[in-house]
Amino acid sequence: MLEEFKQLSPSEFFYRNKEIAGFSNPSRSLYTSIRELFENSMDACELNEILPEIILFLRRIKRSERGEIYKLYIQDNGGGIPKKHILNALGTILYSSKYVIRQSRGTFGLGGTLALLYGQITTGKPVKVVSSTGNSQIHQYTFKIDIKTNNPIVYSYKAIRNNRGWRGTIIEFYLEGNYSIASRYIINYLKLTATITPYADIIFVDPNGVLYYFPRTISKMPRPPKKVKPHPHGIDLEFLKYLINTFPKTLTIKEFLTRAFHRVGENTAVKFLQYAKIKPTIKLGAINDDILDKLYNSLRSYNKFISPSADVLSPIGEDILIEGIYKEFKPEYVDVTSRNPSSYRGHPFIVEAGMAYGGGIPGQAGDILLFRYANKIPLLFDEGSDVSYKVLDKLKQGSYKIQSDKPIAIFIHIASTKIPFKSVGKEAIADVPEIEREIELALKTLFRRFLKYRRRVIKKKEAEKRLKVYYQYIRLISEFSSKLADREAADINKLLERVKTRYNVKERISQTISKQRS
Amino acid sequence: MLEEFKQLSPSEFFYRNKEIAGFSNPSRSLYTSIRELFENSMDACELNEILPEIILFLRRIKRSERGEIYKLYIQDNGGGIPKKHILNALGTILYSSKYVIRQSRGTFGLGGTLALLYGQITTGKPVKVVSSTGNSQIHQYTFKIDIKTNNPIVYSYKAIRNNRGWRGTIIEFYLEGNYSIASRYIINYLKLTATITPYADIIFVDPNGVLYYFPRTISKMPRPPKKVKPHPHGIDLEFLKYLINTFPKTLTIKEFLTRAFHRVGENTAVKFLQYAKIKPTIKLGAINDDILDKLYNSLRSYNKFISPSADVLSPIGEDILIEGIYKEFKPEYVDVTSRNPSSYRGHPFIVEAGMAYGGGIPGQAGDILLFRYANKIPLLFDEGSDVSYKVLDKLKQGSYKIQSDKPIAIFIHIASTKIPFKSVGKEAIADVPEIEREIELALKTLFRRFLKYRRRVIKKKEAEKRLKVYYQYIRLISEFSSKLADREAADINKLLERVKTRYNVKERISQTISKQRS
Repeated sequence: MLEEFKQLSPSEFFYRNKEIAGFSNPSRSLYTSIRELFENSMDACELNEILPEIILFLRRIKRSERGEIYKLYIQDNGGGIPKKHILNALGTILYSSKYVIRQSRGTFGLGGTLALLYGQITTGKPVKVVSSTGNSQIHQYTFKIDIKTNNPIVYSYKAIRNNRGWRGTIIEFYLEGNYSIASRYIINYLKLTATITPYADIIFVDPNGVLYYFPRTISKMPRPPKKVKPHPHGIDLEFLKYLINTFPKTLTIKEFLTRAFHRVGENTAVKFLQYAKIKPTIKLGAINDDILDKLYNSLRSYNKFISPSADVLSPIGEDILIEGIYKEFKPEYVDVTSRNPSSYRGHPFIVEAGMAYGGGIPGQAGDILLFRYANKIPLLFDEGSDVSYKVLDKLKQGSYKIQSDKPIAIFIHIASTKIPFKSVGKEAIADVPEIEREIELALKTLFRRFLKYRRRVIKKKEAEKRLKVYYQYIRLISEFSSKLADREAADINKLLERVKTRYNVKERISQTISKQRS
Repeated sequence: MLEEFKQLSPSEFFYRNKEIAGFSNPSRSLYTSIRELFENSMDACELNEILPEIILFLRRIKRSERGEIYKLYIQDNGGGIPKKHILNALGTILYSSKYVIRQSRGTFGLGGTLALLYGQITTGKPVKVVSSTGNSQIHQYTFKIDIKTNNPIVYSYKAIRNNRGWRGTIIEFYLEGNYSIASRYIINYLKLTATITPYADIIFVDPNGVLYYFPRTISKMPRPPKKVKPHPHGIDLEFLKYLINTFPKTLTIKEFLTRAFHRVGENTAVKFLQYAKIKPTIKLGAINDDILDKLYNSLRSYNKFISPSADVLSPIGEDILIEGIYKEFKPEYVDVTSRNPSSYRGHPFIVEAGMAYGGGIPGQAGDILLFRYANKIPLLFDEGSDVSYKVLDKLKQGSYKIQSDKPIAIFIHIASTKIPFKSVGKEAIADVPEIEREIELALKTLFRRFLKYRRRVIKKKEAEKRLKVYYQYIRLISEFSSKLADREAADINKLLERVKTRYNVKERISQTISKQRS
């Protein structure tokens, strides 16, 4: 036997396999670190309905042959971390507030701690964290992560009196990176985030001292996401057993169903139990393997459960999306659409999409850029294996051959309590048929409206041309006709009014906002 | 504060995020389960230099509306698992024999246990395992995995007398799946494995009773992979500290370097310490933060360490690769090439490549199929984001415009102690520059030789045509000339000999084998 067996702690596992979470080389790791911590900060604000103000400072500390050392400072005005959780939330892998069913940027509850671990691995320096929930104290720790035991090791602790009621979290640590390569990803990432969060104030000072400021332009925020109970569709046997064990044994199965599941009321529970041929009065303590099996199979096959509610989701909203796209790209044309909520395997989701044309949209004539978002995170890598890319590609090759004289940008946002990511790196979304369908319908709507707009623009251009010809004669004709009819000269300005050549972007924005409000 | 903090066990984390390891839907999960257990079996044979004999039985137990239940039986003749490790190796997440530096199919030490966990989640049934290392006893367990504590729960144990000296492992468990969708992936996977392992006997009986037999055609095996010490390049600070702690404090730093690292001998250690300006006689116990910092930075910047040795790797070998491709595809033309060992960030790797044309290669004229392998695993998904795809695409669009009247297949195998996979699902390899370069060189060699062969074939066809014309006259000319010169008639068969129209595949195989042997 040549094999040696070993057990790894979760820290060791992710330390050894950090590539799978996006920490593959100095430039990518720098990008991932900033992104993960920034996303945690945004979540900490939005969850508490606080208009986000995020400040990022990146300083180059040391240049070296193989890599450079940076100091990253990130400050938010979010809800802060309660004292008893600060060390574990940041210093223990697989310890997180993300392990409930709720839409959030972070899904794996892993990235922030991994970023700090990456910093420790590459520089050996401890992390400094300052946090307060706005109560009388601000807590300041410096700590490292013990990889073997997956526990934080405290280097120092200080409590500071919170005289001004400050609330938020500050993290400061050292890490290896390569900003000259990573910069375009980092800036792109922040710009694309700002595009869908015009209600956030984001400041980034880069190692060259350049300030990137993405100012807040509206003070309306999306409703915060809500925690939700599991939906009976898509539940697995293991989870069902776990749920049963969390309730008292004296509870009846009917009560259990209404308390444990999302969208199961008295009525649904009774009807379902009839379908499953299980007596509603059976106590949880009396459930044997036979009943469990029956219950499980019936939960999966019963097709009359109400679909999960999308009220728990936090979509961007049409008005915020259109404002954001306009703010960041100043296009000639912008349009957005929001699909009705849908669900896959018991997880609710909403698809929102936008389309912009000309103005500040980068690229050349004929380009169709795709900007993908999942739970308000811009996805920059692995575009080719993403469901949105697949759908767009299909439409482009199909009947929607959009030809344009200026570049076009497509924005697709998917909000869900569970985004079906293909990897821990959270870069591509799997092609779940239900999601694919909603994206397709959203894009078709946008394409149709865009083609209509283009036809209108072309028509108007032709009319304008015609008008120029008429223009030379029309006053004469008008005067002549008036005299002939012995009437006063007509007002020809009205005729000219009919041709407004440009689609009015600002008007489109106010239309959307008023539509939303009504 | 709306946030609730929680800690997850590794089992819980992977249970909740099983998609990232390839368990995304019933068909894909069935494929992944078979693949993970099959790969463990192959590793268990090859590591112990045993010619693999693997038997897979998949039976459909129950059809249902939303999914089907299958029973999977897999048997190997590998080294077996020692009794004290059986339960943990299969019933604890992150407990594995893969956590050493060595080339192996499994990298994360996760897939096998996850497959069993997936079965438990979807069917609620325990797993049966039978294993023996060939000693006096065969051990048989049935067990489940406790997700909350990440520990196996034993249902039964039996020791059986091993009268016939049987050695190997049998696993039997139930899982949800969808064979009608998964079948083509499973069969494709086995066929592509058989292509590079002609020394293995693989039997698969599918749920419809169809037998797929991939017979062993040669009894030569690749040399087994070896465990190796870490190479000083690419080591990180955390790991350096860990290494220092595993040696006695009284050891000098010079001794430490020679004992802890791969490719660092007495001489290299002395020269390196001169470069680092560290006294060779310093004891490990006396290393302070300053010295540690100096040591770490110097290890990374010193460029005179000898590259990692590739002796520890287990490449397929040219003769085995050519035999395998021929056995499974019976092409008209087959060629292979093996690059010299190289390394990236301290990890040795070897690129091997093959090219086949016509015969049983599927597809149409002009098709160039890409078959990707990493440590002898065929990679079937996410081709578009793989480094091999990128290189092939570049070459196709560049100067190597290969046009052919029959489909072409390209085989690329990368063997390494650390394959830079992009995700836990092990489907795509990241574009590490060093690996990219070796793949490019291998493909260029194959393309050049193929183009030469094609030119030869075309030339010969033209010659053949000419010959047909001559043929009608050549005997007459020959006779007439002979008479004229008053000599005996010449032997014209030699002229005809010159034109052999076909490249001889069998000959190419024996050439390669004799070249390898010499």
